[in-house]
Amino acid sequence: MTESQARGAGGSGPTGDQPAERIDDGRAYGRSRGSWDPGLVETSAGTPAGELLRRYWHPVALSSEATGLPRRVRLLGEDLILFRDGGGRVGLVEPRCCHRGTTLYYGRVEDDGIRCPYHGWLFAVDGVCLDQPCEPDRGRNRASYRQPWYPVQEYNGVIFAYMGPADRQPVFPRYDIFEDLRDDEEIVILDHFAFGGPSEAPCNWFQTHENAMDPYHVFILHNAISGHQFDPRLEIWPRIDWQRHPWGVTASQDRDLPDGNVLHRVTEIRVPTIRAIPTPTLTVLGKTNNMSWAVPIDDYRTKVLAMVRKPKDRPPQALPVYAEGKSWFELDEEGHQRYPGDYETQVGQGPITLHSTERLASSDRGVSMVRHQFLEQVRIVASGGDPVGVSFDPGEPPVSLRAGNYVVAPGDESLATEYSFVEQ
Amino acid sequence: MTESQARGAGGSGPTGDQPAERIDDGRAYGRSRGSWDPGLVETSAGTPAGELLRRYWHPVALSSEATGLPRRVRLLGEDLILFRDGGGRVGLVEPRCCHRGTTLYYGRVEDDGIRCPYHGWLFAVDGVCLDQPCEPDRGRNRASYRQPWYPVQEYNGVIFAYMGPADRQPVFPRYDIFEDLRDDEEIVILDHFAFGGPSEAPCNWFQTHENAMDPYHVFILHNAISGHQFDPRLEIWPRIDWQRHPWGVTASQDRDLPDGNVLHRVTEIRVPTIRAIPTPTLTVLGKTNNMSWAVPIDDYRTKVLAMVRKPKDRPPQALPVYAEGKSWFELDEEGHQRYPGDYETQVGQGPITLHSTERLASSDRGVSMVRHQFLEQVRIVASGGDPVGVSFDPGEPPVSLRAGNYVVAPGDESLATEYSFVEQ
Amino acid sequence: MTESQARGAGGSGPTGDQPAERIDDGRAYGRSRGSWDPGLVETSAGTPAGELLRRYWHPVALSSEATGLPRRVRLLGEDLILFRDGGGRVGLVEPRCCHRGTTLYYGRVEDDGIRCPYHGWLFAVDGVCLDQPCEPDRGRNRASYRQPWYPVQEYNGVIFAYMGPADRQPVFPRYDIFEDLRDDEEIVILDHFAFGGPSEAPCNWFQTHENAMDPYHVFILHNAISGHQFDPRLEIWPRIDWQRHPWGVTASQDRDLPDGNVLHRVTEIRVPTIRAIPTPTLTVLGKTNNMSWAVPIDDYRTKVLAMVRKPKDRPPQALPVYAEGKSWFELDEEGHQRYPGDYETQVGQGPITLHSTERLASSDRGVSMVRHQFLEQVRIVASGGDPVGVSFDPGEPPVSLRAGNYVVAPGDESLATEYSFVEQ
Repeated sequence: MTESQARGAGGSGPTGDQPAERIDDGRAYGRSRGSWDPGLVETSAGTPAGELLRRYWHPVALSSEATGLPRRVRLLGEDLILFRDGGGRVGLVEPRCCHRGTTLYYGRVEDDGIRCPYHGWLFAVDGVCLDQPCEPDRGRNRASYRQPWYPVQEYNGVIFAYMGPADRQPVFPRYDIFEDLRDDEEIVILDHFAFGGPSEAPCNWFQTHENAMDPYHVFILHNAISGHQFDPRLEIWPRIDWQRHPWGVTASQDRDLPDGNVLHRVTEIRVPTIRAIPTPTLTVLGKTNNMSWAVPIDDYRTKVLAMVRKPKDRPPQALPVYAEGKSWFELDEEGHQRYPGDYETQVGQGPITLHSTERLASSDRGVSMVRHQFLEQVRIVASGGDPVGVSFDPGEPPVSLRAGNYVVAPGDESLATEYSFVEQ
Repeated sequence: MTESQARGAGGSGPTGDQPAERIDDGRAYGRSRGSWDPGLVETSAGTPAGELLRRYWHPVALSSEATGLPRRVRLLGEDLILFRDGGGRVGLVEPRCCHRGTTLYYGRVEDDGIRCPYHGWLFAVDGVCLDQPCEPDRGRNRASYRQPWYPVQEYNGVIFAYMGPADRQPVFPRYDIFEDLRDDEEIVILDHFAFGGPSEAPCNWFQTHENAMDPYHVFILHNAISGHQFDPRLEIWPRIDWQRHPWGVTASQDRDLPDGNVLHRVTEIRVPTIRAIPTPTLTVLGKTNNMSWAVPIDDYRTKVLAMVRKPKDRPPQALPVYAEGKSWFELDEEGHQRYPGDYETQVGQGPITLHSTERLASSDRGVSMVRHQFLEQVRIVASGGDPVGVSFDPGEPPVSLRAGNYVVAPGDESLATEYSFVEQ
Repeated sequence: MTESQARGAGGSGPTGDQPAERIDDGRAYGRSRGSWDPGLVETSAGTPAGELLRRYWHPVALSSEATGLPRRVRLLGEDLILFRDGGGRVGLVEPRCCHRGTTLYYGRVEDDGIRCPYHGWLFAVDGVCLDQPCEPDRGRNRASYRQPWYPVQEYNGVIFAYMGPADRQPVFPRYDIFEDLRDDEEIVILDHFAFGGPSEAPCNWFQTHENAMDPYHVFILHNAISGHQFDPRLEIWPRIDWQRHPWGVTASQDRDLPDGNVLHRVTEIRVPTIRAIPTPTLTVLGKTNNMSWAVPIDDYRTKVLAMVRKPKDRPPQALPVYAEGKSWFELDEEGHQRYPGDYETQVGQGPITLHSTERLASSDRGVSMVRHQFLEQVRIVASGGDPVGVSFDPGEPPVSLRAGNYVVAPGDESLATEYSFVEQ
């Protein structure tokens, strides 16, 4: 018989009639199971956080996914049908026909809208009923019937939806890094989660989002634990700081490079779901050429959609390489255990992480700032206000992003704003 | 950047400090999620609708499915074990042995009943315990133990069960169209849902049932949307009317044929789950040669079982052909979207359709009549009465069906009662 | 038309206006759906039965399963991570890192413990935090952080865990049959459920456990129903009795053998999850050479882990042979129906058997005794006492088992204590 008695437990039991004192040796017995903060994670209509999210435009699909064949999409916990009518208009509607409730997924897309397969009611992209063929005069009162719908916007190959109240619909925001495209440039969309992983993660969006303000995990997870997933310069231990802005939070990491310069890396989060993470492979220097949106499919599922500007003759992004040159999908179970990345650690926090059992430390200050600001905005909307970052002015200028991998001389605070691809 | 702004949404937001009025443009934000009417859809014991259903005989399996090997069946939300003992008697019993609760699915069928595999208690088809081999004298008190059971009837190759109270058990009803079989005729059973689809549909039975009183969907769904699934004469726009009877509802569709005759098509629903739909391929004219039962497996699953009388040298039914000559099972996902049928539209209403969000129109009058009558019968049973269509008189004559595809001269109201197969 | 009317149902309905009396013919209509006794079946922390179970050591894995690669295990409804650090110490910890909650399943096992992949916190097998690399001075206060953990013991190739309160941790018990191993003997572990079946059963542990005090099922299930699954001598009808002990229950079965001797078979249950069932194939005579533990994975899943002592040149156990020489895994669905065994009857009682609908008979006395004693111990713990069979004395001698297949002369009550393998 071999015995391996864990420290603090061996022979520590009481004897006979003499019960021991209550021992607190941190064992799991009696621990709290924990809970999450609903203000951070809920996405449904009617919840405070869900109502904050509903005051912004969110990506719902690629432009190429809106066609003459109806497509099922899901956003903020709502199942919807996406289509593009014969006139090129994109429709995003409630699946259940407002007449007898069958799904418009089997509907027929026509020049002016989508026709229910059951009794033929035809709806325009704004839900207005245009035809009721089984009713007298094809529906004398048809205009008073309206299929529930949401407004959409197409922008650089992505369809965005606004799922909030009609009277608080903001203008659609644009971003400076995509506004001055040159002829030899293009914008592409990447929808893989965490640099090369699956397109969808089975966990709440917020725990994937706050990771962008957690620069410390880069040199633990992506270097020390899993080898060199990113550029070797990111292994240099940096000076880290965070900055709170009215519109979000930035993190700066300053690394002294061997050549005497400083790598000034800035990552950026904007309320509610935007992040700009300059490519960690350092194949692009200067101002970020990409930004992305966390897409809360529902409380338990998340997509990330990145919009990338690049020269037409360049690949959009160098992907991290895992052990033995394998991609995320080529790793087996043991490979994922030995070489975890963002997907494993974020999904590994559970379907919704339990904030009440966390023990945040000084390195988690950025995460705390992101949560604090989000909860502030939740409260503003709950009390009837408009949240930060929405504008009702059609003349609103494009948003200017801060993120980038800036290589500068020590003390130089004038950041180059042009991105550039680096030969490798 | 391209933009496709849905009508009514473009630039409609408020500006600056001047919030807009509450806009009602029918968008999905704030819509009700809806609910169903439990009086129409519930099937469990103890629910008002479930108790109405339990006052009738329901098909539970084919005769060929009751054998010496126990079989799992499910009806009205109850899991049961079906078997046929060595004497040819059909048993339908609770799966859990009344002794220690193991399942009789692993029981051994013997001459006189089914024997539990665990401790050998033997039960006759009426649940009476005939043997307790581990007890003194093989169970001195064994006759006082009874395995919960239900009475069954075999009729034309189908086993029917009565799952209601013993003192309200009606006589088993017969139907005129099966009573005078000629030597060259036979009765066959079809169990595919919606003319050639799967045998089971993942939705509530009522939404599949009321469709039989919805003649309008025939020339939208089965003609305009999905091509010509049925006989081309059904594309002629008919005069439609509905008739309320004490025992059910009929729908009549009169179509003026090119040869001057009238196609007088009658479909029929009988409380609670019977429908007679003359074959829509018009390969049989005159009185219907088939009737069917919706089988509520539980609140979320439905089978349909059709009983068909026919000449022995004829196929039971011409099945609809979908696009490119494909059967339902040969269609791919896009094929089902482009050529939907009854399965897609009825299952597409969801596991249980949400009555509260419907907007019924004049073409839905038959559906309303069916619902109204069903709810009346639910109330009658709930207040202690006997519902329509049950009889306690062993001499009760067979039920006479009305349904048919009657080709008649204009004004001729004497309907031919003989069915005939049509050469094609 | 053929009719098969079950007895007692035919034509028994009321007629016309004259409703019948309430008929009680045992039919399933109106039966209770039943419930279980939570005191027997619950396993979670905080439930009375779960707290009794947490006062004992339970097998959680094989020694060979604790390696440098973290492994997921589940016991008493709790998900845990098992590993063996570089020093050979076994760790059993809460999966969620106490820092930011990602799972240690993706952690890196090091010489002194397991390191979280996300921010690098390192935990010893007793949960003490040894390193916080992203904090100043690698965590000035790191010793105050502790990952929730459980103590473990290795014994004969099995890892046992104690999941109860620290101040009531008993000494790890040993068993006499494993204490005096000879050089030509070894101890092996079997983890198949019910003699050759799957390693895990999808049902509550208690219904698999009490079966050990149910000797009657042996000659029904294992002989009469499913042929001769065990040794033919077990088909002889025995004299059966049960004995209540402070620590458990034994069952004795005395069979008069053709040679004039008596086969005195004793099976044994010890609170809470131990059973000793001498091999029913009678390939081992004398005192049992094996004992086993029911392992309550959670309320709905059970493993059984058997520890077997044997000569090195012997197979651990002769497995029962099902029909046509097939193993459990080789039987098809009909084969399992026609030749059920322990797995089918115990899993066949449902995820958790419903005690309220049982009708126990005289042959179930052993089962009643086991339940009665378990509920007594549940009450003792609930009122603050220590349950039977736990000791806080490090000098506690090994437990002496009673079970065996003893072939003795009539009247001989001196049981041979040596096991012996039988040539066949």
